[in-house]
Amino acid sequence: MRNEFSWSVRVYYEDTDAGGIVFYANYLKFFERARTECLRALGINQLQMTEKYRTIFVVKATSVEYHAPARLDDELRVTVLVKEKSRASITFLQEAWCVDRLLSRAEVKVCCVDLDAWKAVAIPPEVLKLVTMFSLEAG
Amino acid sequence: MRNEFSWSVRVYYEDTDAGGIVFYANYLKFFERARTECLRALGINQLQMTEKYRTIFVVKATSVEYHAPARLDDELRVTVLVKEKSRASITFLQEAWCVDRLLSRAEVKVCCVDLDAWKAVAIPPEVLKLVTMFSLEAG
Amino acid sequence: MRNEFSWSVRVYYEDTDAGGIVFYANYLKFFERARTECLRALGINQLQMTEKYRTIFVVKATSVEYHAPARLDDELRVTVLVKEKSRASITFLQEAWCVDRLLSRAEVKVCCVDLDAWKAVAIPPEVLKLVTMFSLEAG
Amino acid sequence: MRNEFSWSVRVYYEDTDAGGIVFYANYLKFFERARTECLRALGINQLQMTEKYRTIFVVKATSVEYHAPARLDDELRVTVLVKEKSRASITFLQEAWCVDRLLSRAEVKVCCVDLDAWKAVAIPPEVLKLVTMFSLEAG
Repeated sequence: MRNEFSWSVRVYYEDTDAGGIVFYANYLKFFERARTECLRALGINQLQMTEKYRTIFVVKATSVEYHAPARLDDELRVTVLVKEKSRASITFLQEAWCVDRLLSRAEVKVCCVDLDAWKAVAIPPEVLKLVTMFSLEAG
Repeated sequence: MRNEFSWSVRVYYEDTDAGGIVFYANYLKFFERARTECLRALGINQLQMTEKYRTIFVVKATSVEYHAPARLDDELRVTVLVKEKSRASITFLQEAWCVDRLLSRAEVKVCCVDLDAWKAVAIPPEVLKLVTMFSLEAG
Repeated sequence: MRNEFSWSVRVYYEDTDAGGIVFYANYLKFFERARTECLRALGINQLQMTEKYRTIFVVKATSVEYHAPARLDDELRVTVLVKEKSRASITFLQEAWCVDRLLSRAEVKVCCVDLDAWKAVAIPPEVLKLVTMFSLEAG
Repeated sequence: MRNEFSWSVRVYYEDTDAGGIVFYANYLKFFERARTECLRALGINQLQMTEKYRTIFVVKATSVEYHAPARLDDELRVTVLVKEKSRASITFLQEAWCVDRLLSRAEVKVCCVDLDAWKAVAIPPEVLKLVTMFSLEAG
């Protein structure tokens, strides 16, 4: 069993392209919305985090596979799971589902960066709750 | 004769929606690209402007009519013309054309704002060149 | 009293720009999400509508005023109200609020178009429920 | 020496986010613009291709590393190189540069799909010019 967080995303015209399906780059937006809501569900507000620690999360790498297309009006279930964690970075495993069909699977690596020096720094302790609650090992 | 600035914009998948045409909100992006390039053509860089005067241009109102759709791969000609000018704001009249077909016509009102106080302030003198060169009255 | 529909929209990084606020063109997306959800709340699915009547709603004109900026993590309340109705078109009056602060007010005119002939046609009867339920006169 | 195609992309407000830099998902748009212009430079129009062969290119996988941020007004050089080719798919190696600084490197795998059956089919012969002209082996 995987103890993953999931968030619902509705597809609007703004998300689609002339192929009649969701524009592939937009899945990165959906995945980020789910990560943000996962933090919010743990009581973490990214702006307050930034003010308190002078740090920001920066996306360092994304890797996305597209399995099936989503269409206008589809309701997607977007999941969040911590795959790996180091001192300054977290790699998420994320999926987008429409009912029981896997549309897309991604790995997103974010790095915690000092706002002033723009250098990698340790992840704030509050965020580590994420790792304990929603990780492959925790399941 | 109108002494307008014009800028070429190509339509990619990212600009279209499931209706097979350019998503209407994206014309605001095209119009902004043309305004930015109009300033650049006059030797004005918005970032340098902001650093020098601590001011920024903020869009206060937009009004867009959609006459005909643009499609993937279309090359649009987007025009810029100053319609009105006050101490702190400029209203642009802009159009998007595909060959000889008018796709969209807009009015965009931008206001010069002080970055610190976030209040309307006088437009930097360099930008007034815009008004003399590309305005309805100047034609 | 106004009998308006309202829909909640959260601001993510994807919605903001380098000014630190929501990019003005993105309010058009927020307004469309609210119109779509308003139809859905009345049991209307736009795709089914299109299949049944071979019609589609096309945005003909938008007019937006920007009063105050929204920022990352803000939760906006976006409203929908029918202002005017003709045989083939509806003009919506829409607003975006953050708590008790009006951020943006817009008028959006949509036209019902025949998919094959791409000509204005009468609005499907189901959609007229919108007009009776959420209009300035109905309040 | 690598025989790559390159295309210039300017950064506008629409491309940035509240971090003051280009929103990471938007690099996928920049990479697609460059691929499209690479095809156009070879005399290939994707819409005509679709009409002639009833095929379309679908993005199957993307993998992007982010090395340094781009900012408002930056002019990026986006490159296109064919890394691998099979009967129905092409994997591109793409980079985004700002002057001599590498901002992002990506692999994008596109698959040629039959519009009616939505199944992988052989790449149209015209497109194979791409492979001979702009590939790692060709350099």
